[in-house]
Amino acid sequence: MAINASAFGKIVGKDQVLTENADLIPYGFDGTAGIKQLPGAVIFPADTAEVAASVKEAVRQDIPIVTRGSGTGLSGGSVPIAGCLVICLVRLDRILEIDPANLTIRVQPGVITKDIDEAALQHGLFYPPDPGSMKISTIGGNVAENSGGLRGLKYGVTRDYVMGLEVVQADGEVTRLGNACVKDVAGYSLKDLFIGSEGTLGIITEVLLKLVPRPKARKTLMATFSSMEAAAEAVSRIIAAQIIPCTLEFIDQVTLQCVEDYCQIGLPVEAAAVLLIETDGHPSAVADEAVAMEKICRDHGADDVKVAATEEDAAKLASARRQAFSALARVRPTTILEDVTVPRSELAKMVSFVNETAEKYQLQVGTFGHMGDGNLHPTFLTDEKNAEEMERVHHALSDIVDKTIELGGTVTGEHGVGLAKKEYLSRQFDTTGFAMLKLVKKSLDPDNRLNPGKIFDPA
Amino acid sequence: MAINASAFGKIVGKDQVLTENADLIPYGFDGTAGIKQLPGAVIFPADTAEVAASVKEAVRQDIPIVTRGSGTGLSGGSVPIAGCLVICLVRLDRILEIDPANLTIRVQPGVITKDIDEAALQHGLFYPPDPGSMKISTIGGNVAENSGGLRGLKYGVTRDYVMGLEVVQADGEVTRLGNACVKDVAGYSLKDLFIGSEGTLGIITEVLLKLVPRPKARKTLMATFSSMEAAAEAVSRIIAAQIIPCTLEFIDQVTLQCVEDYCQIGLPVEAAAVLLIETDGHPSAVADEAVAMEKICRDHGADDVKVAATEEDAAKLASARRQAFSALARVRPTTILEDVTVPRSELAKMVSFVNETAEKYQLQVGTFGHMGDGNLHPTFLTDEKNAEEMERVHHALSDIVDKTIELGGTVTGEHGVGLAKKEYLSRQFDTTGFAMLKLVKKSLDPDNRLNPGKIFDPA
Repeated sequence: MAINASAFGKIVGKDQVLTENADLIPYGFDGTAGIKQLPGAVIFPADTAEVAASVKEAVRQDIPIVTRGSGTGLSGGSVPIAGCLVICLVRLDRILEIDPANLTIRVQPGVITKDIDEAALQHGLFYPPDPGSMKISTIGGNVAENSGGLRGLKYGVTRDYVMGLEVVQADGEVTRLGNACVKDVAGYSLKDLFIGSEGTLGIITEVLLKLVPRPKARKTLMATFSSMEAAAEAVSRIIAAQIIPCTLEFIDQVTLQCVEDYCQIGLPVEAAAVLLIETDGHPSAVADEAVAMEKICRDHGADDVKVAATEEDAAKLASARRQAFSALARVRPTTILEDVTVPRSELAKMVSFVNETAEKYQLQVGTFGHMGDGNLHPTFLTDEKNAEEMERVHHALSDIVDKTIELGGTVTGEHGVGLAKKEYLSRQFDTTGFAMLKLVKKSLDPDNRLNPGKIFDPA
Repeated sequence: MAINASAFGKIVGKDQVLTENADLIPYGFDGTAGIKQLPGAVIFPADTAEVAASVKEAVRQDIPIVTRGSGTGLSGGSVPIAGCLVICLVRLDRILEIDPANLTIRVQPGVITKDIDEAALQHGLFYPPDPGSMKISTIGGNVAENSGGLRGLKYGVTRDYVMGLEVVQADGEVTRLGNACVKDVAGYSLKDLFIGSEGTLGIITEVLLKLVPRPKARKTLMATFSSMEAAAEAVSRIIAAQIIPCTLEFIDQVTLQCVEDYCQIGLPVEAAAVLLIETDGHPSAVADEAVAMEKICRDHGADDVKVAATEEDAAKLASARRQAFSALARVRPTTILEDVTVPRSELAKMVSFVNETAEKYQLQVGTFGHMGDGNLHPTFLTDEKNAEEMERVHHALSDIVDKTIELGGTVTGEHGVGLAKKEYLSRQFDTTGFAMLKLVKKSLDPDNRLNPGKIFDPA
């Protein structure tokens, strides 16, 4: 399975091919702890035609392909397969067109997520999906993983904004799926099949995204609680009051302390749980919702509720949540970031179970996440060099996954399956559904060329 | 291919099987003009187990299956195949659970669309998709066709509300896809493949839907224009002002006259085009948007703008739009309802082209539709017994489809492909994409058992 690199050099240019070990190392991992593998070569095509030609060459040489952007993935989706060709799409980094009349933006897959929202802002528009990594992640990866973010509760996830895709198939043929129409029911929604397919069905080379009007006002609140149950109850009451805030995030005490140690922004480190709430929209709606949510929090056990007085204060509170992962990652050498998700009503139960499980296996865990979504990020602070501790982590994760399924949840809310969740996927699907995943993969990538062994093993 | 009906009687009960011609006639057509075919038999299963057993029996007898609900489809999706078994799901008509904490409702496929919203209303919640037929259509058909409606611009279509499905596969096995989690990226989104698959991939036996808070206020406006271009320009300006109203409908002069003849509600029959606009949400936002939209309409050529003063007035205006199809259908024996859709910015061009085409082929056409969505319903008033006239209709439709594709549109915005649009589908997909549709069908229904020959012919 040795790669004939010069054949790829003829397609993308000799200087856009890496084959030396020292050069390959940065492409041997992504944002996922404990998973590494050097590829056979890395290439950097400049456009769709070069991607398509490269795929055809890989077919000719019979080598597997792994696609990659910034490598910020958290489930090993872009970690190479031994001897594979990595197609890195960072040079396809142009915003091709912004169309305010149709509220769309057309971009190449290597565009940084945050740059899309900034381009939208120039027209007073808004691209809502905001994965934690949005300052460095690429939109191609967001689409491939169907990335979520903090604003999922009100605004949905990446899938909700993808109107069209250009995709290079496993045989190197190029196709366009979807279009700029708000409504389109012609044929199966193949674009929805590619969204979240983690690079296993095709290579995304262009994305047409929906934009929405930018909300005119925003307010940020921070409520502190002496128990997680009280915080969860407040969240339920907010939803029951028919308020859907833009973000409804929580941070537990362990995480809170780590963030405060890291950022020193005066967080209430003695609280068992903090809710960070942001509402946006029409100024009157925002004002009404902020008042209503403050009252609900106070009526349901909040020790304190702060409403950010200035944009600066609001940004400080938001950054507390955005720093959670980085702050936790400083504590121990290895940080295992989970993203089990349950129906919203089961969230308090799930948080308790995570804490009990950490105690049972004598592990350090900090939990934060999207409380409004039921999307939890229990983060195990550990050391991958300690095999015995990693064994305990593994048992804890497995127990947490089982509990998630029992509560009607999913093994991954927004990080993807990749390699990290592969062993758990079959617990969530029934036999028939799991078999269907394989049938679909086989129909569109019969030679198992694209990101083989990710998500599930072929039939 | 004669059906052994008694074998199905053993599954669903003898009195739930129809085989006599006189009984079969009502099941030989749906809402689509000019397409009829008697089935071999019709059965009415009572639950998922009976559906699954019936599919297995159909496999044993090697007969094709067509699934059906109320039969309100507009593309022939539920019209039988010669000698087929029709599985009619109207007895699976229970609302199984409404969960205000998670904002979900779980229903059987035979539940009437409008009843879902009415159940939601009991909890102050809202199920937005409102296809024209919502008083009689079933949710199973809405999911199978990915039905749209008047509120698509702001609230999206059926797909945007489907969180989970129970599906009986082509081999009779049952699977559950999706769940009550707001975020879920475990495996391919198979549920999205089934939504809009028009009964060709599986039989939907349960649906988990998302609900949203019910908007607290609503205002309805009617603006009259002396040209379609002016109306289209006003729509563009509304969107450019970052207002996304709940509905943004238009009615042309022909339709307007027919509706007035039918309903006598005092419509401005001399206008070239009328916009019916509804905004909903927070009372202040609604008030601001209504003022802003009235001004935009007046500034861009509206001869008059009426704001409905009472709920009753608003209902009258809304019913003008909802009666459009029925009103047009009274004029001639056959009504061919199109639903080509273009990006919003191309809508004025498309409307002009429809009128030119009608003139060219000397046909009567009334056009109405969802202007905010670019989703047009040119409606040809004709007579299917007049072969020569139908030939001209056919040429007109074909020209309209070509123009739609040229403008970056879709051959069907919300009615589906079924039989009516089958000959046009390949004009929209490129060769690779069209081949993919067939690959997916073949992978999930290898014997071409489910609704064979709909959407496309198998490979």
